[in-house]
Amino acid sequence: MVRKLKIPYGFQDYLPNECYAKRQLENMLSEIYVGYGYKEVETPTVEYYDVFHDVCDNDKLKKMFKLTDNDGSLLVLRPDITLQICRLASKLDLTYPQRLYYVENCFEYLDNNDTARTREFAQIGVELIGDSGLDGEIEIVTLAIKSFLRAGLTDFKIELGNNNFFKGIVSECGLSEREISYLTSLIERKDSLALESFLQSTNASSDFYDKLLLLPTLFGGSEVFEKAEKISENKLTYSAYENLKKLYNALKEIGYEKYICIDFGMLHGYDYYSGFVFKGYSKNFGLCILDGGRYDGLCPSFGFQGKAVGFAIGVQRLLSVLNEKELMHTAPYCDYAYYCENADIAKEISFVEQLRKNGKKVIKLFCNDTETLLGFCKRNNISQAFVIRGDNITKFEKESILCQK
Amino acid sequence: MVRKLKIPYGFQDYLPNECYAKRQLENMLSEIYVGYGYKEVETPTVEYYDVFHDVCDNDKLKKMFKLTDNDGSLLVLRPDITLQICRLASKLDLTYPQRLYYVENCFEYLDNNDTARTREFAQIGVELIGDSGLDGEIEIVTLAIKSFLRAGLTDFKIELGNNNFFKGIVSECGLSEREISYLTSLIERKDSLALESFLQSTNASSDFYDKLLLLPTLFGGSEVFEKAEKISENKLTYSAYENLKKLYNALKEIGYEKYICIDFGMLHGYDYYSGFVFKGYSKNFGLCILDGGRYDGLCPSFGFQGKAVGFAIGVQRLLSVLNEKELMHTAPYCDYAYYCENADIAKEISFVEQLRKNGKKVIKLFCNDTETLLGFCKRNNISQAFVIRGDNITKFEKESILCQK
Repeated sequence: MVRKLKIPYGFQDYLPNECYAKRQLENMLSEIYVGYGYKEVETPTVEYYDVFHDVCDNDKLKKMFKLTDNDGSLLVLRPDITLQICRLASKLDLTYPQRLYYVENCFEYLDNNDTARTREFAQIGVELIGDSGLDGEIEIVTLAIKSFLRAGLTDFKIELGNNNFFKGIVSECGLSEREISYLTSLIERKDSLALESFLQSTNASSDFYDKLLLLPTLFGGSEVFEKAEKISENKLTYSAYENLKKLYNALKEIGYEKYICIDFGMLHGYDYYSGFVFKGYSKNFGLCILDGGRYDGLCPSFGFQGKAVGFAIGVQRLLSVLNEKELMHTAPYCDYAYYCENADIAKEISFVEQLRKNGKKVIKLFCNDTETLLGFCKRNNISQAFVIRGDNITKFEKESILCQK
Repeated sequence: MVRKLKIPYGFQDYLPNECYAKRQLENMLSEIYVGYGYKEVETPTVEYYDVFHDVCDNDKLKKMFKLTDNDGSLLVLRPDITLQICRLASKLDLTYPQRLYYVENCFEYLDNNDTARTREFAQIGVELIGDSGLDGEIEIVTLAIKSFLRAGLTDFKIELGNNNFFKGIVSECGLSEREISYLTSLIERKDSLALESFLQSTNASSDFYDKLLLLPTLFGGSEVFEKAEKISENKLTYSAYENLKKLYNALKEIGYEKYICIDFGMLHGYDYYSGFVFKGYSKNFGLCILDGGRYDGLCPSFGFQGKAVGFAIGVQRLLSVLNEKELMHTAPYCDYAYYCENADIAKEISFVEQLRKNGKKVIKLFCNDTETLLGFCKRNNISQAFVIRGDNITKFEKESILCQK
């Protein structure tokens, strides 16, 4: 019996208050996106593995919930919504850029020693698909910042990077694709010991080595641009430098300087993103709550043109930061509670429906005593109660409720 | 390339207008339930197979998407939410009945020749868990009728049954559990030829046979009660008869008689439901859109007491009926569209944010010509446009938009 009450590791129920908080957050954020002309879409929970195969790295491919279909095709529980949206966008008219958003769950097949992550996680995200240039990136970062502000975060940072900066540096180092991929993983893991011994084993020049060591230091406010410009020596590095500088200046003009950090060393989603990338963090929470960037290569991987930029927010992570601040955590319940005793049902309905028509929430108790009714009201913070007894309606106001046990 | 654009059979994307219609419907229905004191919950997409194993019939067990977890346990994509809610209810205080609702997707592993059904389907449903008696059943049917009315259905029927009527009849026929189960499947399939030859092969009395033949005729309005009463000869049949009669009378008093049908032959969910059952149909749509009933045995199957009654609505089915009536199908887009030309970003933001603060939806175009802007507005039914050029703002009203190509 008890066995049946268990939920698989990394999955969860949302009980009423948790669910209410989650919905509130989702609605608040959706409202922002709708105000900018974004439209909601929904994608299937199950997709062909093929959709993700060429684009996601090996680690991500391994961590997918996989199923086999009737015809032997490999299916997965969606690990990512952006790729699904790109597939979906093939059905839309891309003459003008399309603005889309979603509120859906993703899945990751984790070992049960991975305690920081959940295997089903809610994401809310936006995608701007079509040619929007720097203006599109400004809009997307603006939406990210507005999302955090609307949710009630105050102490947060949006870190902006551009993976073309790193690509530009490695483009001249003479390493193979495979070596670069390994190098990327070492830098992402911040494994400097392994990095050093790896570089010594290659033919990389000392100039390359110096730039690589400089990379993690190119992190902070506007002061990093001067240092970065000095090593922006080829087309890729310079375009990345220029992109971040313009973006920074625009966001500063909007008044968002205090939320922004520049990180030239951000290698986030190296295979997936094509240029601008960003992440959002809140104080006292180690994991990133929001991430996104430009992915001009994803629509072409489905056979059609479509530049794109967007982000996704981890809803549970954002909620857990907000929960710490004890925000948003009481579902407002009913305005009235009542019970009936030998009452005419037509009379009951006409009275109660009138309240509901006036926008009141009314809950019926299946009891036969006033004490239970008033106790329920007190416990659930309901300030008005009534009893329909025969033809009579007896009302109880706040005072009689508060003096209940 | 084209291969990647395919979605697995029986799954679907919701493009912006479809998604908008779905959300509208879900919000309209949720609002009703909240007005009666129901609170939303969310359950995991993946559950242990065990949760469903003892309760669902073999056909349903076969048609589940199954996965194996790290530790070898069998997992399924949720085929049903009611059972999950019962599991979840073990965490709630059931001193007072709990009113819960959900908006989630279920999964059914179908062959690809089953064209009437989808393999992922959205459900919105309510569950009233705890001792609520006939009053609870009245509330649940009321919510079902209100859901249909709110969605805009006019020509629909709610069919009420009680599977204790059939249970009562077969309790005296001397057939084994296994024979009864086979008999049920024949009646559900309306396979009267097989039914007759099966009955002849058993020791069932002619009296039993007569009652069984009468069962499908006990369908209609209040006139069926007299016929049903005559064969309500034991405790089970009589309790079923009494339950349906009281329910019918109460719903009639509320003014719902025109939406109600009685069906003493309804064997729906024989193993799952314990007594009162019901289904909702719309004219010109063969499949049931809503189904539910009383399931007093489900919470006990998780080891705790909790009577329960509820229903679920198939959201896609309801939408498809509404779509035929061309209802709800245009997502309202933006109030304003604009583009900038050499404009100061701070000026742009201050102007546009003022509009958004006043509740206006404003979309930015990434173009440089008025013709594109006004064409976009015309196409998307946006009635106001403006251009920010340097320090100037040029506005365009409906007239200039309508005369665009």
